[in-house]
Amino acid sequence: MRLLAFADRHGQPALGARLGDELVDLTAAGLPATLDELLRQGPTGFEAARAVLGTAPRRPVAGITHLPPLQHPGKALAVGLNYRDHAAESGFELPKFPVVFQRYPSSWVAHGQALVRPRASEQLDYEAELVAVIGRAGRHIHAADALAHVAGYSVFNDGSIRDRQLRTPQWLLGKNFDATGAFGPEFVTADELPPGASGLRIQCRLNGQALQDGNTADMVFDVAALVAACSEVMTLQPGDMIITGTPAGVGMGRRPPVWMKAGDVCDVEIEGIGLLRNPVVDEG
Amino acid sequence: MRLLAFADRHGQPALGARLGDELVDLTAAGLPATLDELLRQGPTGFEAARAVLGTAPRRPVAGITHLPPLQHPGKALAVGLNYRDHAAESGFELPKFPVVFQRYPSSWVAHGQALVRPRASEQLDYEAELVAVIGRAGRHIHAADALAHVAGYSVFNDGSIRDRQLRTPQWLLGKNFDATGAFGPEFVTADELPPGASGLRIQCRLNGQALQDGNTADMVFDVAALVAACSEVMTLQPGDMIITGTPAGVGMGRRPPVWMKAGDVCDVEIEGIGLLRNPVVDEG
Repeated sequence: MRLLAFADRHGQPALGARLGDELVDLTAAGLPATLDELLRQGPTGFEAARAVLGTAPRRPVAGITHLPPLQHPGKALAVGLNYRDHAAESGFELPKFPVVFQRYPSSWVAHGQALVRPRASEQLDYEAELVAVIGRAGRHIHAADALAHVAGYSVFNDGSIRDRQLRTPQWLLGKNFDATGAFGPEFVTADELPPGASGLRIQCRLNGQALQDGNTADMVFDVAALVAACSEVMTLQPGDMIITGTPAGVGMGRRPPVWMKAGDVCDVEIEGIGLLRNPVVDEG
Repeated sequence: MRLLAFADRHGQPALGARLGDELVDLTAAGLPATLDELLRQGPTGFEAARAVLGTAPRRPVAGITHLPPLQHPGKALAVGLNYRDHAAESGFELPKFPVVFQRYPSSWVAHGQALVRPRASEQLDYEAELVAVIGRAGRHIHAADALAHVAGYSVFNDGSIRDRQLRTPQWLLGKNFDATGAFGPEFVTADELPPGASGLRIQCRLNGQALQDGNTADMVFDVAALVAACSEVMTLQPGDMIITGTPAGVGMGRRPPVWMKAGDVCDVEIEGIGLLRNPVVDEG
């Protein structure tokens, strides 16, 4: 299934499944209003969604107001330096262990919403990333079993304020300016993709020009390894997300550097998962 | 007021106000079951709590099962290297800007609950810290106005798995092993403390021996500066918390190093705010 979070006509969150150009309104059919809640129901939630696909009310996908696929993830674990060529362009050593920081939901917007370049800095950079969403809780998960804990995948733009990210030893503040990242539009269940969503082309295009063009097979730590490493530390819960890092080509690594600015349009696309498009505006 | 989260006789969260040896059950008097929800109500929440102090049912404080003061903070911003002598003992330069990482609620326990030394490492270290809790939302808050956004203060043990914290450029995994930190027992409203909770003695004692003995006046960035710096980046919301860093004396800085182990009892105490006590056990 390809699930979409959207705002219903009253502005309330609702959950739909896309079938071609049509959206099946799962919430109107009695299912939860958010993917977060559907994930907490475990396998029965997805079974219930599949069961109503043929009978639930439909509407055109065109014209909907997207919401980020998850509303309140307990943890949004973002992985840094997870593609060899990106670690090199960033001036860091290739990591021996996953490098993890937090990205708050307040720092991202939905498909179609504007990324905001803050007053504090002009250095708004893009990062195309694959998101893995946990469906089954676990601690001390072995890598061999890890993909059974992943419910599905989505697309993320890990927009970063570079000077703020790098001016202290910890990146969190530079990675969490309000509305500098993006998430969506769709959550694709794992059964529709290759194991670990590996081998998929991942691109970032700024105003139509491809600035990142990589493949999810080139991660230093693949999805299974990331799930295992995080679960050694903490119990992963349904709805937790792992934002798995970006390939080479970010604006910071270019000479001269490329920063996103008002009027730009940034696309992040992952083969078989979706296209995430956001315009850029300046903070008011 | 001095507020306490506790489990009621059905195991459900409840909120109380301590008056001497007695606990006023605010939830039984119709107020919210969590401090998170009380904070979202704004000033009227605290006014309502004060209004029922004289009439709500009371019980002895002794014997209650504590819960962490906040159940679901949207952001738990932890500050590193925020006391001059601790930055030095950690081998880092004194920061020019606040150094911030995330601490997940799954990584801490309540007063009286056991800290868990994980299988992964013996290097479980203590860190005595002051917590500031946001009461009023804001972005771009000036330092001069910042304390008006702080509802109150509490006590934190920012327990850390040192080898895991320091083996990659980002500290998050080493700071977030399940049940390695502690929070509480009380949330003290700002009106009961000096401005910014400054000038308070802060101690960590392991098995009764004082290993940290500092003063909250010695922060590199005080509470007002931290609120201002974080709010330049993100909109702070009621219930967000800032864990403000630790003074010198951590186990990692000692020769030989001191790690907490099963059977130890760790106390963190801040003058006028409270004493947070936790035993230590090994992961099962």
